[in-house]
Amino acid sequence: MIHLDLIGIGTGNPDHLTVQAMRAMNEADLILLPRKGSAKSGLLDVRRTICDAVLTQPVRVVEFDLPTRDAGGDYIDGVQSWHGAIAAAWAAQIATHLPEGGRLALLVWGDPSLYDSTLRIAGLLIGGGMAIDIRVVPGISSLHALTAAHAIPLNQLADAVTITTGRLLRTHGWPPGAGTVVVMLDEGGAFEALDAQGIDIWWGAYLGMPGEALVAGRLAEVAETIIDLRSALRREHGWIMDVYLMRKSHGTADDRSGLSQVRR
Amino acid sequence: MIHLDLIGIGTGNPDHLTVQAMRAMNEADLILLPRKGSAKSGLLDVRRTICDAVLTQPVRVVEFDLPTRDAGGDYIDGVQSWHGAIAAAWAAQIATHLPEGGRLALLVWGDPSLYDSTLRIAGLLIGGGMAIDIRVVPGISSLHALTAAHAIPLNQLADAVTITTGRLLRTHGWPPGAGTVVVMLDEGGAFEALDAQGIDIWWGAYLGMPGEALVAGRLAEVAETIIDLRSALRREHGWIMDVYLMRKSHGTADDRSGLSQVRR
Repeated sequence: MIHLDLIGIGTGNPDHLTVQAMRAMNEADLILLPRKGSAKSGLLDVRRTICDAVLTQPVRVVEFDLPTRDAGGDYIDGVQSWHGAIAAAWAAQIATHLPEGGRLALLVWGDPSLYDSTLRIAGLLIGGGMAIDIRVVPGISSLHALTAAHAIPLNQLADAVTITTGRLLRTHGWPPGAGTVVVMLDEGGAFEALDAQGIDIWWGAYLGMPGEALVAGRLAEVAETIIDLRSALRREHGWIMDVYLMRKSHGTADDRSGLSQVRR
Repeated sequence: MIHLDLIGIGTGNPDHLTVQAMRAMNEADLILLPRKGSAKSGLLDVRRTICDAVLTQPVRVVEFDLPTRDAGGDYIDGVQSWHGAIAAAWAAQIATHLPEGGRLALLVWGDPSLYDSTLRIAGLLIGGGMAIDIRVVPGISSLHALTAAHAIPLNQLADAVTITTGRLLRTHGWPPGAGTVVVMLDEGGAFEALDAQGIDIWWGAYLGMPGEALVAGRLAEVAETIIDLRSALRREHGWIMDVYLMRKSHGTADDRSGLSQVRR
């Protein structure tokens, strides 16, 4: 039996770790760290730093090469076959390092429930007959890291929030009826598909990390700044993780303090 | 100058606290704990327990009576005048205990951005001329505590999520286009306003606490169980905090493992 812990580690700031996450890491027999290619080695470094800071027990930490996603063809098909390849890579590591079973921990960026594939990949292994018992340790997600960095509420008073992807925003536009929209997994500038009139935006990248970058303002005024800054930062770091929140003003001044800022 | 730290403490499990939250608590000159009346004294006890567990520095911890909300009249008006009364109560505590300024910490259930009023109340004091510098420490929100407890993803693959309130669900029904809906602040059974056909639900109360209760299943089959269990638990504890996630099946078996369960 494999006891699989999916541990939310927050957005790269070791101080985001919870007591529960630190305990689960120390209880593991094996922690697997994915290598995502040289351009994203900064992400691996963050996980290594967290292991160094947190582990007080002799836990084995093993790095493995994460398969890459085929970006051609249908998006959903491409993601599903990529998940299959990752499941096979995990299975190989388990066969090598935990042949008799044990506690396997994976460190998940943010929170394991939010636009993350580890739960689905574990489901593929279970569907394939592997005996796995899953525990999820919740983490500080980029949603909350973003709103904390800007010191803003996620929702407007008594109103709803839609969390969506850059892809959906580009194809479907502003979600009907939404007062607040959070956009994740945007490869850059999906907000250009919107009529910027009356929309405010709060954007953040590398949230909680030393390179944290924040921009807030009226979308019409800061859209270009965000697109340019994002490109420059991506070149500089080799990778970027960013997220943003947009609101349509309901005609009140609520939540609009701190607008028109760029902080790095 | 008041340095106000709004510290997300998670959903009542001291192990949800982050390193950053524990540090911020110890850096405070004053921590204010709200008393919400005898029926909700369990909530105050949780905050006291967290202070006892975390504080290693001589931080002053002061309890104060939180004004109660007038439940009559217009909902939004009632909430806004309640926030004004809370702001006045904070100001009185600050005048008494931090007359020369200093670091004031408030322990916020879950995460300070999500259906919580502390940021808005601080905004009222700033609007009234008090010099306040706000820092938000993100916490494990009930969103992530719920999905972790059920070991499910928040979103379906490449799909959007709407976070809404019981009040909005009752008046507006299923949010248009949403695959996944999370409902907060429901006073009980707002899902009865929906056609239950094709909807799955994952419900949780007292998440992360010893009394954690979970129900999952097809809405048509478990709606009554949830309503009855919620009433019974509320009577037993004197208060309840619960949250639930619902999905419309897209015809796949994705995310449906673990359905039809009641765990206490």
